[in-house]
Order: sequence, then C-alpha cells, then structure tokens
Amino acid sequence: MKTYVFLLVILKVSGRIRFSTAENPCCSFPCQNGGVCMTMGHDNYLCDCANTGYYGDYCETATFWQGLKNLLRPHPDTTNHLLTDPGYKWIWDVINNIPFLHSVLMRLIYLLRAEMVDSPAVYTSAHTYVTFEAAANTSYFMRGLPPVPTDCPTPMGVAGKSELPDVDYLVERLFRRHTFTAETYGSNLLFTFFAQHFTHMFFKTDVNRGAGFTWGGHGVDVSHIYGPEKDTENKLRAFKDGRLKTQTINGEEWPPLISQSPVKMLYPANVPREKQFAIGHEFFGLLPGLFVYATIWLREHNRVCDVLKSVHPEWDDEQLFQTAKLVILGETIKIVVEDYVQHLSRYNFKLTFEPELLFGQSFQYQNRISVEFNHLYHWHPLMPDRFNISGRLYEMPEFLFNTDVALEHGLTTMVDSFARQPAGKMTYHNHANVTLEVAKDTILQGRQLRLQPLNEYRKKFRLHPHTSFGDLTDDREIAEDLERLYGDIDAVEFYVGLMVEAHRPNSMFGPTIIEVGGPFSVKGLMSNPICSPKYWRPSTFGGDVGFDIIKTASLKKLFCRNLKGECPPVSFSVPMATDPVSQCEDEDCLKVEL
Amino acid sequence: MKTYVFLLVILKVSGRIRFSTAENPCCSFPCQNGGVCMTMGHDNYLCDCANTGYYGDYCETATFWQGLKNLLRPHPDTTNHLLTDPGYKWIWDVINNIPFLHSVLMRLIYLLRAEMVDSPAVYTSAHTYVTFEAAANTSYFMRGLPPVPTDCPTPMGVAGKSELPDVDYLVERLFRRHTFTAETYGSNLLFTFFAQHFTHMFFKTDVNRGAGFTWGGHGVDVSHIYGPEKDTENKLRAFKDGRLKTQTINGEEWPPLISQSPVKMLYPANVPREKQFAIGHEFFGLLPGLFVYATIWLREHNRVCDVLKSVHPEWDDEQLFQTAKLVILGETIKIVVEDYVQHLSRYNFKLTFEPELLFGQSFQYQNRISVEFNHLYHWHPLMPDRFNISGRLYEMPEFLFNTDVALEHGLTTMVDSFARQPAGKMTYHNHANVTLEVAKDTILQGRQLRLQPLNEYRKKFRLHPHTSFGDLTDDREIAEDLERLYGDIDAVEFYVGLMVEAHRPNSMFGPTIIEVGGPFSVKGLMSNPICSPKYWRPSTFGGDVGFDIIKTASLKKLFCRNLKGECPPVSFSVPMATDPVSQCEDEDCLKVEL
Repeated sequence: MKTYVFLLVILKVSGRIRFSTAENPCCSFPCQNGGVCMTMGHDNYLCDCANTGYYGDYCETATFWQGLKNLLRPHPDTTNHLLTDPGYKWIWDVINNIPFLHSVLMRLIYLLRAEMVDSPAVYTSAHTYVTFEAAANTSYFMRGLPPVPTDCPTPMGVAGKSELPDVDYLVERLFRRHTFTAETYGSNLLFTFFAQHFTHMFFKTDVNRGAGFTWGGHGVDVSHIYGPEKDTENKLRAFKDGRLKTQTINGEEWPPLISQSPVKMLYPANVPREKQFAIGHEFFGLLPGLFVYATIWLREHNRVCDVLKSVHPEWDDEQLFQTAKLVILGETIKIVVEDYVQHLSRYNFKLTFEPELLFGQSFQYQNRISVEFNHLYHWHPLMPDRFNISGRLYEMPEFLFNTDVALEHGLTTMVDSFARQPAGKMTYHNHANVTLEVAKDTILQGRQLRLQPLNEYRKKFRLHPHTSFGDLTDDREIAEDLERLYGDIDAVEFYVGLMVEAHRPNSMFGPTIIEVGGPFSVKGLMSNPICSPKYWRPSTFGGDVGFDIIKTASLKKLFCRNLKGECPPVSFSVPMATDPVSQCEDEDCLKVEL
Repeated sequence: MKTYVFLLVILKVSGRIRFSTAENPCCSFPCQNGGVCMTMGHDNYLCDCANTGYYGDYCETATFWQGLKNLLRPHPDTTNHLLTDPGYKWIWDVINNIPFLHSVLMRLIYLLRAEMVDSPAVYTSAHTYVTFEAAANTSYFMRGLPPVPTDCPTPMGVAGKSELPDVDYLVERLFRRHTFTAETYGSNLLFTFFAQHFTHMFFKTDVNRGAGFTWGGHGVDVSHIYGPEKDTENKLRAFKDGRLKTQTINGEEWPPLISQSPVKMLYPANVPREKQFAIGHEFFGLLPGLFVYATIWLREHNRVCDVLKSVHPEWDDEQLFQTAKLVILGETIKIVVEDYVQHLSRYNFKLTFEPELLFGQSFQYQNRISVEFNHLYHWHPLMPDRFNISGRLYEMPEFLFNTDVALEHGLTTMVDSFARQPAGKMTYHNHANVTLEVAKDTILQGRQLRLQPLNEYRKKFRLHPHTSFGDLTDDREIAEDLERLYGDIDAVEFYVGLMVEAHRPNSMFGPTIIEVGGPFSVKGLMSNPICSPKYWRPSTFGGDVGFDIIKTASLKKLFCRNLKGECPPVSFSVPMATDPVSQCEDEDCLKVEL
C-alpha cells in the first residue's frame, strides 16, 4: 500500500522555473507544502509529496482530509487578529474561565505550533538534502529549511541579483537607530534582559566550527545557571545542602568570584579578577542585566534547596541539588510560558504551562535548536542606548562588563530601574550603535549558511509570500531601497526581511518572527524531558512541595521572594498609569507610547 | 485539577517491609506498578502513583480504565504461547494474509512493546532518583529500574544475605560448559555473528568511566560500519562515487588495511600491521565472523552507491555517500526486524518493518540504550568451542583475531560454513571456556551498578515474580545451589537469573530475556529517526530506487547479491532436512536437535 505520491515531473522551462542545464533544477524551490525537491539527472527533478497531505507535480493539491483541515484552520493572520484584537478580549475572558474549553485550545496551540517543527531534525547547514547526521549529530543547529544549493544562478536560488547588497550599506541604511523608538506596548528592560538571559542558554553558535554549529544543548537545560557541563556545575556547587556557592557583599547574596569558583568566563583583560564573577554562562559578565538574572536564579536555587531540605532532612547534598535543579527548570518553563510568552504574544487567551495536556498525544519530547530560530531571535533593537539606574544614567559602553553597577545600587534598585525603563521597538532604524556589528554579522552568517529567502520561510510557516516590497514594509523609503538592492521580493534575505517587516496590529514583532518563532518556541518549551509523563509527577520534584513551587511560579514571585526590602513593580511592562513612569528621567525613555 | 494520586504512607513494619530507622525505607521496593518510592524523612516514604494508572498506598489498585486495559491484555506468558505454539500456526497463517488485521496487530506490538521503555530516560546508574541528567547526559546508559539504594540492609535491598555469592564459584557452577548444547531450534553461527555484529554498534561500555557509561550512540546508527564519529568515517570513505574504501585480495573485495584507512583498531601486538583491517568498529578484528559481516555490509554499501549513481548521475560523492548510508541503515532495520527478530522470537505472526504504522501515534522517535539491555544481551552461550570452516576445525583461540581464515577460505565458504554450524543454546552450563571471564565480569558489573534483583525486573515487565527457586529454573541441582547461595528468591541477581531461567516451550531464551529484551529491542528499532514521517519517504533514500532496496531487503539478498559463485543456504537456522547437516564434521555440531 503506497501512502505517498511520487511523481516524475518533466521540467517545463516556463513560469517562474528558470534555469539552464548547468543549474540545479531545485534552485527555484518548485515543491510546495513541504514537498521535497530531488534532482533526477541533470535536468529534471521530482517533488516527493509523501506524508505531506498534498499531491501533484509540485505537491500543490491537498488531499481530501488535508483540504478539510485547511478549511477548518484559519490563516495565521486571522488567528493572530482574533487572539490579540482588544475587541475580542471579552470572549477570551470567558474562555479563559472555562477550564475544559481552555484546555482544548491550549492543547491545540501546543500541537499546531509544535507540528511545524521537524522532530527528529532532517536538515543541517551542511547538506541541502536529508542526512542521518542531521538527526544524530547534535553539534549542528538544525535547519527549518535546507540551504540554497550552491549551484544556483543567484545566491537566493533563481530570484534576485547575482550579488547580494553590500552589508555595511544595508545595516547603515535600514538598521541604524537615529532616535530611540520605544516598544509600542510598554515592554521594559526586565523583559529585554529576560529574553537575553533565557535564550543564551541555547543560542550558542560555535564560531570556531562555523555559523551552522552550536556548542550548546538544544533547549531549556538551565545550563545558563548551572554551566554547560558537569565540571562547571561542580565548581559552582557548594556541595552542602544542595546549594550553589554565593558570597555576601553589602549584606546581599551574589554569585561567587572566579577565584572561588574557577569556571571559564569571558571577561576582557581590563576587568580585574576580583570583579570577575563566576556564572553558568561564560558570557554573562557582559551586562549588569544578565548579572541581575543570574543572581536572582542563584538565590532562588538556594531558596528551593532550603524548602526541600525542610521536607527531606534525610536527603544528602546530591539529591537536594539534583531535585532543586529540576524545580528551577520547571519554574523557568512556567515563567517563560505564562509571563514571558504571554507578554510578547499579546494574546488575550491566557497561556498556561500544563504538560499533562500533551500526554498520549503524538508529540516528540526532544528538541533541536534551529539556526533560523537563532537568527530571528536577534532582538537587539530592544536594547536602549543608555540605562537609567535609579536616576543615574549609564551609557552602553559604561554598562558593559561593569558588575559594580549592580553591587553599588543593590539588586532591588536594579530590578526596579529595569522594570521602569522601556525597551526599544523591534523594527528598522532601531539598532543602537553597539549592536550594529551584531546585525551585520547575522546577515553575513545568513549568507554563509545560504538561508533561503524570507518568502520561502513565510510559505513554510503558512503565511502568504510577500508580493511586493510595499507589502513587506510600511516604510516607503525602505521599500524603494530594498527593491533597488534586491530586485525581486523573492530574493529578500531572511534576517533583513524580519527586521523591516510591517507589524500586524497589536503585535510587538513582524508576523514572520511570530509565525516562525512561535513553533520553535512552543516546541522547545513543551518538549523538555520534564514535561514527559515519567518526569511530570510530584516525586520528581521532591513531592508536592516542589511540584507546587513550579505550578505556582511567576516572574513576580521569582523576584519578590529573593529581593530585600519592598518588592519593585516586577512585570515585563513599564508600570502603568497607576504607577507613572516618573522615574524615567532619560528623554528617550519618555517616548514610550502607552 | 489533580491528576495524580499521592498518598502519605505511614510505614508499617510488617509483612515484607523490613528495616530499622537506619535504613532507607525504599529498600524493600514497596511501590508497585511503576509507582515511585520517595523517602519522607528518615522513617517514612511515599509512593508516587501519578501517571501510572494505579493508586493506593503502594500503587496497588488499578483505576477503572487501567483495570479494563489489564483485563483486555493477556499475560505475557499467554501472548507468547499464542504466538509461538505450533497448534495456532494456522490462525497466524490466516492473519498474516489479511493486511488490515496484520497491520492492526503489528502496530499494537510496536506500541505495547515500546511503551514499556521510559522515553525520555529518567534513570541512570548514578542516582536512585529521577534527575535531569538522565535525559540530558548521553554518556550514561539509561536504566530501566534505578539502582538499589546504597543504604540498604542487603545488596539486593532487603531480601537475601548481606553478601552476594562468590562470583568464581557461580560461574564455575552455573555457567561453565561441559558438553556443547546446541540451540534447540537450529540457530546457526550466521545468527550468532549477526547478533554480535549488530548489537556491538550500540553496546559500548565505556570501561574507563565505569560500567554505567557508554561511548556509543544510543541505537541503530550503523556506527559499526561507518565508525563512531566523522573522522573515522572520513578515513573509511573513498571519496569517489559515495563509496567506501576496499581492497582486492584473491579476486575478492575486502575492507582496507589500517595502512590505507588509519582508523583506531584494537588488534593485539602479535597481529602484523599488514593483517590489520580497518573496520567501523575498533573491536571487529576480533573474530572472522565479525569480519565476514563487516565485509558484506561494505560490499552492500558500494553496491547501493552504484545503484544510486545510475539514477543520479548528477549527484556528487557526498550525496551518494550520505544517501547510501541511509539506505544501509534502512536495510539493517528491515533485516533485523524481519529476519533476525522473526527468527529469535519464534513467532508464527509475521513481523514486518512498517514505520508508517506509527505515524500519528503517541510514540517517541528517540532512544537510549539501557544497561539492563546490554547485560541481558550477553549471549555468549551461542558461541561454539570450535569452528568448522568447510571441514577444517578451528579451536576458538586459533580463530581470535585471525583474519587470514576468511581470506583463505573466501567469503562464500565462510558464509556457507557459518550457515551450517549450530549455535549453542542460551542456557546454564553452556558458556565456552573463553567466554567465562565475560560472564564473570557481567555479574560483577551488575553488582557495581547495583542492579535490582531479577524479580523486580519481572514485575516491571508484567511477569509474575518467581516464587521459588524451583519456579525459576528446571534444573534441580541449580535450584538447590541458588537457594543455598542467595537464601531468598527475591535476592537472585539479574544476569544470573536470566541465565538459569527455564525456557517457555518453543522459546530460544528464558521468558525474562524475552519480556525485558523485547521492549528495548522494538523501541530501539522503530524509534530510529529514519522511521519518522519526515525521513520515511522516497526522496530521503534517493527516490523509489533506494526506498525499494530497503523495503525488499532480506538477509538472503544481502549475502547473495554480494557473494561470488553459487549462494550458500543463507538463513539463521542450519539447513533443514532437504539440505542435511552433512558438512558438519564436528561431533558437538551433530548434537543439534532439529
């Protein structure tokens, strides 16, 4: 019984399929709907439509069942509109309060988002076709779409010019911030640093091997707290009551110094050793915002250890440590889903972390970070040009590798200030000077990796491809610029397109970031081993006491339980009308539109 | 909504639960049916029954749905009887020919076997409780059951004596072969060497780190052909037309020498370099049987490359190589399921390799090799004392690291001889002298690893625990010996128990080997990435041509397509009546009961 449709397509040199016999006939990405293009001799190709729900020469025709599914499933633009438009908020308020209905929808979100991600992985940056290595070799980031073949007429396949635009020109013209534009919906620096702190646990490009490689695990493994491997973890551990090493400075608990925990950290030579703190991620001395999050999680780990020890006086250091680590991991996912993703999605539907909704479903508890997810998560426009800590302004260069800032102001003040300062808007003309270089590198890496054009990613993630430059961006000048530079809307590069794309109403990001990032994000969070049935039970977390810590975790509790004095207005938005942005003395900071 | 049952058990010092306050109350393995024992203070414990389908103090009571499932699902002994008893063969012959019914049952076998295996992994040998490391750190073998806690009254928990029997005595008394006993159902050396060759791709104890660690991948990754990592693979590749390096000796293709492919191999110092062949597994110079299989797969890889190249003249070496490797992987699983497992299971139901049956099911495409699977796969009784190659007898020591044997006789003769010589029976008193040391090491490793007693594994895999030594083994002398040595049937060690266990009728192995090994085996085979929907389609394997090679692969074809001259009687059994065991000139060899 053949369950696949596999048809020989005699290539027609017509329409958009343009190539000579010297070219790879798959360069035009002729196969639709997840069909795989395979060359057959030098001039022909086949679209393999097996297991896609489609058939036809280009896998363009839906089977009956797939057609029905398509009919029932709204377009992502519609879904997003329904979920975010304030006009429907009352409906969601009702749904959020009907547990059965809420569970059905939440499960659907998990499943529909996750099914967009290949699991096991099939592509890496090393091959344009499926290899066993893609699944087996975790040194690679996976790929959502395979690289553009090397034997194509243009760098983007067949569309566009034979050379891509000058990257310096692109960055200057499209990315450089002239005036700070605040994030439209009031996101603050607590959000910015959460994003940076959280995602760097799995976005770890192995630059020595190349842009397609990673030195990280492939998901939420809390390696940014405990280190990338056992040796670092051991150096960070106190080996007493499960706790991590800390030191007290100005009456507060902080991470240890590298003299106390000799882990590998990347501090520049001008940072004296007595100011080099040991953190799970070698890079997290970079910014006081990362240092703040590192400290908070460190305190939370030790707090959890004490709670566990009170219930389990019989446990040794090792069991307390291992179990506290599982609790911290659970809290992380809970907070990411219910505070962080809830905030950035702007959904009126209440997102919940309920692993049990996936029990018995066709769902893979494994994850691979894709290089596209890494690229689209380059959210540097969120970064302001300067930081306002309790009224004192720090220019970015002053802030870098300056752990003194946090020690001097104290953790509570740092958190308070981050909560009150707006983040930048994720759009064009909003990269601060220091982050321009990162944007440039990202584009160059995208070229090295031969990422397929933006429109191919839009198609893969159920969006209509942009039909014109005016369709892509709402800035006429940028549209004209891009048209001149790329020549063809189908040739616009992935990262460039993401950054210039017009936002849908009520969105913090362009639609492609949301529709590509959403699946990778949901899949990464819910496929964590602790979400699987053999993990997700009380005893894994020390019993009800640990399980409840996870199930009731929130950003607010994470901070308020571990800060001295009155708890600041902890949230991912700057405080609202009832708590005006009065502390915001920086002129840019006041530009936030609330 | 609490979906779990989590009850505090105030410990009763009664019945089989025996301990003082100094002991870990989980030592008696009080929790049933997959419930997790967690200490609560020094004297108490909880059974966490969440997600098990059971509740009660010991998770002893089935929920309504679980009870119904239990009612509908026959005991493994019954299932095995129905599947193997010659009396029911006619029913299976009918079922095997009704595709719909066959598919339903085959899917059920996949699912019911695989669901017995924790995936993701929850336990390793390092901890008696669930850790994140169990899922994340692939340096460990996983564990089906956690280790016996270290603070228990006896090495086996609470049962048995405070010291385990002397291992030398055990091995001498129970394992040493006095007369060769042939495998009851005619298994031959082609089967023996297939088992050894195939399983050593994933049974790779990392002795430097300890018995709980592995240096291998965790499943069918064909690393025994292509090497454990890319560097070895590259050294074995010809980098022309996708092919692997070979050399011609006596007009036949053989693996290259290490001078041609400088990969790491473990040859003893007395083997001259010009007789050291380069193979994907460092250990496979050990026996001519492994060398035979290595050569056959090498030839098959190159044959597949030629087939692919004929359809894809446009492909470069890399694409031919990567795709041929995927085809070889597919062929391996096909042959393992449909020839090898079919043979060893002795099922009258026709086992088939049909990954599409699992599409859309709740099934994890990931695998971890468990240390128990490794132990139970120590099938050294299959090995004879001497080898009859075309009438010439080789004692075992002569055979070791002697690649000349294969070169002199030629591959066809080797295969013919292996096909005609019976393997040993998997039972007590049948370890050849040279393999006794391995048996001893296995028992010692089991002790180091603190493997739970045989009866706990029987319970986990739905078998009744043995109630007496007479129930365990059909040899009265052994039963008496074991009773004296262990004192309690609940204290019998895992590997010792497996080896002495009485076989069910029509079985090649004891029931525990079958019921514990079956799940690990099915799970390992069907969870391979190539079985997942994004892999399992024609284009992955070069189109229909490659897909068909996999779908029609068989042991017979593997050999007959790659051997010179008339093809020997390739099968996992010695030739039947029509082709008498006439070549068998060794007296032991004639003892086979057909």
